Amino acid sequence: MRLVIKKNELLHALQDVQRAVPTRTTKMILYGILLHADYEKLEISAYDQEIGIKTNISSLPDQEDNPLQIEEPGSIVLNAKYVIEIVRKLPQPLVRIDVQDFTAIIHSGNATYTLNGMDPREYPSLPEIHEEVGFTLQADTLKMLIEHTVFAVSNSEVRPTLTGILLKYQEGTISFSATDSHRLAMQTIEVDVPTGYEAIEAIIPGKSLTELAKIIPDDDTLVNIHITQNQLLVSFANTYFYSRLIEGNYPDISRIFPSSFRSNLQIDGKNLLDCIERAALLARDNENQVIRIQLKPSFIEVSSHSPEIGKITETVEPESFSGEAMLIACNAKFLIDALRALGSATIKIDFTGQGSAFVLYELNNDQHVHLILPVRIGNI
Amino acid sequence: MRLVIKKNELLHALQDVQRAVPTRTTKMILYGILLHADYEKLEISAYDQEIGIKTNISSLPDQEDNPLQIEEPGSIVLNAKYVIEIVRKLPQPLVRIDVQDFTAIIHSGNATYTLNGMDPREYPSLPEIHEEVGFTLQADTLKMLIEHTVFAVSNSEVRPTLTGILLKYQEGTISFSATDSHRLAMQTIEVDVPTGYEAIEAIIPGKSLTELAKIIPDDDTLVNIHITQNQLLVSFANTYFYSRLIEGNYPDISRIFPSSFRSNLQIDGKNLLDCIERAALLARDNENQVIRIQLKPSFIEVSSHSPEIGKITETVEPESFSGEAMLIACNAKFLIDALRALGSATIKIDFTGQGSAFVLYELNNDQHVHLILPVRIGNI
Repeated sequence: MRLVIKKNELLHALQDVQRAVPTRTTKMILYGILLHADYEKLEISAYDQEIGIKTNISSLPDQEDNPLQIEEPGSIVLNAKYVIEIVRKLPQPLVRIDVQDFTAIIHSGNATYTLNGMDPREYPSLPEIHEEVGFTLQADTLKMLIEHTVFAVSNSEVRPTLTGILLKYQEGTISFSATDSHRLAMQTIEVDVPTGYEAIEAIIPGKSLTELAKIIPDDDTLVNIHITQNQLLVSFANTYFYSRLIEGNYPDISRIFPSSFRSNLQIDGKNLLDCIERAALLARDNENQVIRIQLKPSFIEVSSHSPEIGKITETVEPESFSGEAMLIACNAKFLIDALRALGSATIKIDFTGQGSAFVLYELNNDQHVHLILPVRIGNI
Repeated sequence: MRLVIKKNELLHALQDVQRAVPTRTTKMILYGILLHADYEKLEISAYDQEIGIKTNISSLPDQEDNPLQIEEPGSIVLNAKYVIEIVRKLPQPLVRIDVQDFTAIIHSGNATYTLNGMDPREYPSLPEIHEEVGFTLQADTLKMLIEHTVFAVSNSEVRPTLTGILLKYQEGTISFSATDSHRLAMQTIEVDVPTGYEAIEAIIPGKSLTELAKIIPDDDTLVNIHITQNQLLVSFANTYFYSRLIEGNYPDISRIFPSSFRSNLQIDGKNLLDCIERAALLARDNENQVIRIQLKPSFIEVSSHSPEIGKITETVEPESFSGEAMLIACNAKFLIDALRALGSATIKIDFTGQGSAFVLYELNNDQHVHLILPVRIGNI
């Protein structure tokens, strides 16, 4: 392999792909990034056998400002951490890379790095995906779907399906749902579905979607999503993102939602969030980060208590309240996560009773919903 | 204690003082900050028995925009971490604090915190300093003296004096020096010395000066420095900073400086720094972070080598070079620290030989000097 490439294009590609390099592994080769050049392009990829990312930089010899000149095709695997730090610090905007056997010589300005590489034949191959079913979204819409739900996935491997987000694609809608069995987050969007497509369900690891959200642009770039039996492939611009899917049956979410409510609250989301964050300061040290919310027609009283530190009580005025007065105890972090996702608009909260789930959503928008199970409290 | 205070003034004072609260201690009371109000002011202080910081907010009843109204004097000790987080999140710009026994009730807007406090009589008293000898500097000058030297103090308690900065005050000059016995940093400034003052030498813990640099303003505010037998007191605006001094004899620095040189190099500081930083990437994994510098009349070659990762070689052109060609090996971090302190101007480096100290300073400015001992290398 012999080529000359623009430093910034190379750096950007390496940084994107690095998200698929594991921080700890027993397989040395997985600490590497695979560089593979043919006469048209340089392909840069990493695959930890769970997440894979591939991107390529094209040679455009007809362009005056060609980002890549390939003199000889070839491949090498280079340690991700070192190659990124080195490229970031290179003195000149152009970089020459010469690979001989498993050694890369990187020239830029008056600096010459000789980096020990690894055998590209030992690097795992990315999954082969024959594009079975797919749909297209804007990048910022996909990012929103992820950000409104991914915090609610479970961190426990006891029920592996709950560590993933359930993607549902059906006539006219796409939904992302996540639950750790104590709270649930769901975002639905309306889409134009090509006829003849069947409904799809897939469970995508939360960790994969967190990494994906970091590399997709925050604009209207079109993103193609393909789902096979056990793989997700998301492609946009010159980048391909692969993730394994989680096998198993996701719980039936529709049965979790309460059908009738005993109290309804309408309140400024930002005011409530600020108040809950203040109460949460004293709730951090107890196991479930419990705060109490006393619902009354004229005001809501939020409180928390730590035997060592002290207590806090704060009242907030709702925009409106109807139904029964009641006392709810819940995990402050769950409420903060949901309120942050909902943003600063007016929100509605429907309560079913002291021991049953309550539901939060934006006023006049039931496509973005959060459900939280209260904590049982002994003496009220 | 009963008072009403502006949230931002209180928060700022608590945050400054918090730098004297230890992160780990067996004495619970030291996790606290002492608040003490008389009818004129609220005094806020912390003292870990090594560093002490005291600041006060004055009540100005004649001012329209009075930051503090004191209704009843008193004292309390409050857990630093919690009181700062709580005050930061308070909903309104004014805060009421009512202390009853060892409990503080903090009101702001509709929020009420009840914080368990500690007995102020158990909190250690700050050192009493009768201002013996002192001088005045601009805050930004003091900051510069600290920043140009403090990185060179020793981290090892084997020779406790080397964990401090030697402050020397004598006819016409103040100097700060630090050395870990492998490198030395020294900054001297000229000052007007009041007649009748004797020379002073004091060894101030590097850690204390690092904290001090964080709280002094970055402008021409006047800072008073007082030194007693075993304490430093730095005062500015409404703030007092105390530090113990280190006992013992500091090594005689003047004897460390070489008196004659075999080679002299003049080079752009920024170019050399960038080059050393690139070479350092591959030197991090070896114990002394060794890089090699080959000095030749027409160019300098910087290189480093890691058996696992690879090697780098880079040449830089000097502005001028005179004397013998030689090969120097040294710790990359020492060189980077010195070059960063020296900044981007043209610098001079005087070399004594392969095994002897070399000296770096800004062209035409010998008040800011760094000295580095090379590392011995076997096979050259």
